[in-house]
Order: sequence, then structure tokens, then C-alpha cells
Amino acid sequence: MADATLVISSKNYSSWSLRGWLLARMSGLKFEERIISLDDSSAKAEILLLSPSILVPCLIHGGNSVWDTLAIGEYLNEIRPAGKGLLPEDPGARAHCRSICGEMHSGFAGLRSALPMNLKRHYPGFKVWAGALADIERIADIWRDCLGKYGGPYLFGAMPTMADAMYAPVTTRFQTYDVKLDKACSDYCANILSLPDMAEWFEAARMEPDELPELDAEF
Amino acid sequence: MADATLVISSKNYSSWSLRGWLLARMSGLKFEERIISLDDSSAKAEILLLSPSILVPCLIHGGNSVWDTLAIGEYLNEIRPAGKGLLPEDPGARAHCRSICGEMHSGFAGLRSALPMNLKRHYPGFKVWAGALADIERIADIWRDCLGKYGGPYLFGAMPTMADAMYAPVTTRFQTYDVKLDKACSDYCANILSLPDMAEWFEAARMEPDELPELDAEF
Repeated sequence: MADATLVISSKNYSSWSLRGWLLARMSGLKFEERIISLDDSSAKAEILLLSPSILVPCLIHGGNSVWDTLAIGEYLNEIRPAGKGLLPEDPGARAHCRSICGEMHSGFAGLRSALPMNLKRHYPGFKVWAGALADIERIADIWRDCLGKYGGPYLFGAMPTMADAMYAPVTTRFQTYDVKLDKACSDYCANILSLPDMAEWFEAARMEPDELPELDAEF
Repeated sequence: MADATLVISSKNYSSWSLRGWLLARMSGLKFEERIISLDDSSAKAEILLLSPSILVPCLIHGGNSVWDTLAIGEYLNEIRPAGKGLLPEDPGARAHCRSICGEMHSGFAGLRSALPMNLKRHYPGFKVWAGALADIERIADIWRDCLGKYGGPYLFGAMPTMADAMYAPVTTRFQTYDVKLDKACSDYCANILSLPDMAEWFEAARMEPDELPELDAEF
């Protein structure tokens, strides 16, 4: 019997769902998944960025509903189902971690619209729109800074934190759209993409029917 | 001698600066302001939503730089300069508070682009673009839910929390663009707009030279 339910949408398209799911996995929480079909118009509107706000993932636990990805991360960090937190212990590193999580949460609109998550696709030599290049450079700067400062292999050192979950969908986008990176950043992507949780998620995404021609049409 | 420095940009235009500043005031932190001029091209790009990510406000305290608004809120909630936190004490209310803070942080793009913060202006009878209406309805739902559940006058009861700081710029937008609200929501707006900290911020905004014709041109 699971302790909690995590409501998510498409495993192929929904980057927020992946973030919330990874956070729940990292925390050690036992949870069931409830998947909202993309036939549901509100789920579809959300993935197509037409919804007023992002309401998946949603974690239901102990009578509480937590429906924002960062709020889910903070909640899991507080309840510590497996006794381990999702943030660095050092206050300065913790503030740094929350800062870059916040940047991912509120920013990078160019990247999100130009390079939508789509795990089943691969576009070698994809031409990245200039508006997304500044986002890619900023993300590479963030990663290099963290990997240099905390020693890797995760952004804040030996153990994954909320930040790795927040940036995990970006590693899939860089793979899907063949984005060229320096060695530090491409090693980090390879490390995240090879996590067993990521492999499990990718496998489930591959099993999904294709349901969003609107997203694929432009390529 | 202040304990900290808060880097902000325009008091008239920068809603993120207002949020960070209110959080710092609510926490009781003693801080100096450092204002980045709008002549600075990166500050201007940010307010015009051209920047890859939002790097003001930035709080500098005890050797730490915290540059995202939610991260600043969580940081201040941990260090508690005046012994009081910025989040509700009840775990369920705290998760609710973080969820709606997260919605404001990552969502409502229609509202942000159609009704930019501009404290010096007032547009009676302003015609709101349909794309922003869904955002306005969702925000009113969030407020009514909180005010009903926790009893007001703030979103989570008797004391202001991070959520009131996150939604404070919205109350100014509703005033600037003459958005019609029900009594519960308009009372909440009036309550926030009458806070001494808000009055002080408005007064400083009025003293700023007009520097962003790009923002005003469309009205």
C-alpha cells in the first residue's frame, strides 16, 4: 500500500511531471502514480503552455495536496520519508541550490518553447533558434559553476538534490535536439540520463501512444 | 550598519524586486538597497522579459548570494532575523502556501505580459486581453480559497506570509488596470495596498524618472 499518490501527465512530453516524479523517487517516498490522459483537455492545454498555471505534478499525501514542483520538493524535504533531505546541508549551498531551482522554475521560456521535451524523438543537427541560445548558455554556466564548486558528479556534490531533478528534463532536451556542450556539461548530462530512475521513465514514455501532433508538427 | 544588501531594479516596473523587498521587510532583516539603474541594459532586458532568467532581486547576506525570489523567501524563513518565519506553521497550510507561491512564480504569463506592473499609471476601464482573463480568474480563485479557509485578512490568516509578498504586485496590477473583482478579492487588494511597506514602495516608485517608453507605448 503506497503512502501517497502523485498525479502526472505524459511521460513523453511533461517535463514538470518528470521533475515531480524524480523528486518523489529521490526522497524515498512510496507512491502510486495517477496519470492524466492527454485526451483530457486541461492536461493538453497545460503541456501546450495554454493553461494559466501548471497544476501537475500534484502530490497527495496525508490529507495534503501539493501542486507545484518546488512546493513538492520542499514538502518532501521536510517529511523525509527515507530520512534524507533533497537539499544540501550547508546553508550557503542550500541557498545556491534553491536559487538555481528557482531560475529553472520561473525562467528559460525560450528553451521551453523552442525545445519542448519529447523523449521519443531525436533530431541530429537540429538548428537551435537564437532566442533559446542565451538560455542554453546560462544553463551551461550554472552547471559548470556547480560542478566546479561542489566537485560533482551531481550539481551539489556526491548526492542528487532538488536541483538535479529540476534540470533533468533539460538533459533530455539537449539529447533530443543534439545541443553541443563542453565536456563538463555533456558528462553531467550522460550521468543524469543513465540514472536507473531516468531509464525507467524513458521506457514508460516510449510505451505512450503519440497524441500531440501539434507539438511535433513544427519539426 | 545593515546586515545585508538587497539588489533590486525599478520600483515602478519590477514586480520581482517588490516581492523580494517585501519578503525582506516582513522577515525583519536589516538591509541596504542597491538599485540597478534601468540604464543598465541587462536590468532593462530583464524587465522587458528578454533576459534568459530573472536575476533580481538578489540578497547578499553572510557571504551568500541568493538570487531567486522564492529562494530568498526560503532563506529568510530559515534565518529568521526577527525570530519569525515567512511560512505558516501548520504543515498542510505551509504546503498550500508554497503551492500558490509556486504558481505565481512559474505561471500567469498572460497576466504578466498583458498587465505589466506600472505603479505610476492608472487606466480606468482598461480592456483586458482574453489571454489574461483566465489568469485573473485563477488568481481570484486562489485568493477566495485561502481567505475562506484561513479567515483572512492575509492569505494564510492573521499574519502575512510569503504568499502575500508573491501576490502583492498583482494587487497593484488590478488597481492600475482597473480589474473588477468580487468583494473578498477587492478587500484583500485594499488591505495589501494599504500596508505601510507598500505605501513606502509606491512613494519611491513615484520619484523614479520614466525610463521605459517600450512598456508604456502599447497603451
